[in-house]
Amino acid sequence: MCTACLIENVKSHMLSRRRLFSGAAATAAMGVAAGALSARPALAQAKGRVVDLTHAHDSDFPTFDGKPGILYEVDKNFDPDGYHLFKLTIFEHTGTHIDAPLHFAEGGTSVDALPVENLIAPLCILDISARAAEDPNAVVEPADIEAWVSAHGDIPAGACVAMNSGWTARIGDPSWRNLPDGTLAFPGFSKAATDLLAQTGAASIGVDTLSLDPGNSPDFAVHYSWLPSGRFGIEGLANLDQLPASGATIFIGAPKHRGGTGGPARILAMH
Amino acid sequence: MCTACLIENVKSHMLSRRRLFSGAAATAAMGVAAGALSARPALAQAKGRVVDLTHAHDSDFPTFDGKPGILYEVDKNFDPDGYHLFKLTIFEHTGTHIDAPLHFAEGGTSVDALPVENLIAPLCILDISARAAEDPNAVVEPADIEAWVSAHGDIPAGACVAMNSGWTARIGDPSWRNLPDGTLAFPGFSKAATDLLAQTGAASIGVDTLSLDPGNSPDFAVHYSWLPSGRFGIEGLANLDQLPASGATIFIGAPKHRGGTGGPARILAMH
Repeated sequence: MCTACLIENVKSHMLSRRRLFSGAAATAAMGVAAGALSARPALAQAKGRVVDLTHAHDSDFPTFDGKPGILYEVDKNFDPDGYHLFKLTIFEHTGTHIDAPLHFAEGGTSVDALPVENLIAPLCILDISARAAEDPNAVVEPADIEAWVSAHGDIPAGACVAMNSGWTARIGDPSWRNLPDGTLAFPGFSKAATDLLAQTGAASIGVDTLSLDPGNSPDFAVHYSWLPSGRFGIEGLANLDQLPASGATIFIGAPKHRGGTGGPARILAMH
Repeated sequence: MCTACLIENVKSHMLSRRRLFSGAAATAAMGVAAGALSARPALAQAKGRVVDLTHAHDSDFPTFDGKPGILYEVDKNFDPDGYHLFKLTIFEHTGTHIDAPLHFAEGGTSVDALPVENLIAPLCILDISARAAEDPNAVVEPADIEAWVSAHGDIPAGACVAMNSGWTARIGDPSWRNLPDGTLAFPGFSKAATDLLAQTGAASIGVDTLSLDPGNSPDFAVHYSWLPSGRFGIEGLANLDQLPASGATIFIGAPKHRGGTGGPARILAMH
């Protein structure tokens, strides 16, 4: 690259960074009042179409450790009880679910204490599906965030920034979780990308795969930095390809069992 | 009552009924496309304030049968696992939760199959707190619905119609569930009221108490009629007193475990 080109490139890069940071307040991610207000512009754009970002899950739904994430036992049945009710055993991090800070940070915020202002939020979608089709351990890079900002403006305060790797199309297929040899493989965020997002107003990140970190992560670097920063994550999102990169509002139905580290959630979006 | 007064009363009553039914399509409650559109007017009115309609729950949260509704077991801990995760035992109908049709109707819709269009909906609140302060088994009557319609117009297609009995203020106190002698006592819907709602576009009902039926119900008449009609319920709502009778939008974060009869949910509202 020629010197002039390099300078132009750096300028362009810095411009992106300035745009990234100009509207961002670190406190927004902590759920101050601005978080509630931040949902307004996105809601105002809502066209009224509801998209379900949640997979139905049962004992066969893939989990990180390969064991069933939910087990059912009939507790009451029509005969003889007159109604129907299951006793469920749920390992918190199963299905489309929340990672609260407490999952990877001692003393961190538990799932019932996530600021409600960050549960209805602008949704920013980063599409890395083309790269992920070639590399099942593809990651969101800082450049993906900078490209989004260049196209759509600042990351809004309180936003949920989600990776669309195209993984929804693989659900039900072993390749959602594994390489043919059984090795874990799926896309996720790079720590460089979430470090950059931590300097914006983003309150949460989401992935359409099993983990915030990619399948081949040796160290859960994103889990060990993003969650201890007081922000949260959503794993196992569905149908992100049905939404625009900018302009949708996400509704994050986080469970509210006291002291939980996360758990199955209902996630919807409107645009 | 004099004959003329009686006729006037009947006329007024019929006018209310006509208003109730004029905009209502029974199919709307079944989640056809109109359900999604129905959320638009309410969203357009949104001022951006988020209200949490969900109680935090744990093993001490009151349940209908008096047994703990959720149990925690540490599955992974920071020492030695490096992260934290609970194995939960959950009886589906605990905390702020959904009653899906399948709970009281064999072959009824399970909680994962509730139409998503009905999960973001206009919220109509019926305030019976004055009566409930005098009678802990007070019920929503048809007249409460007619009064709401007279004041605010038709029940919107896809709406959630919720009873505010003032019970949020009693949470943590034994009177949330019982009389001093231990008898179950709390407000609910009358079957006459839900039979009337079944002729409107309402898709769901909600209560701020333990059950759709009042505590002294001998027969669960509302459960055995409203749920088999294909509509659903929400029990244990919080903070309804922070919202207007009309104009708020409810976000119903129903759990999505396959084949479930209901379960703990995250319920939020915006207005």
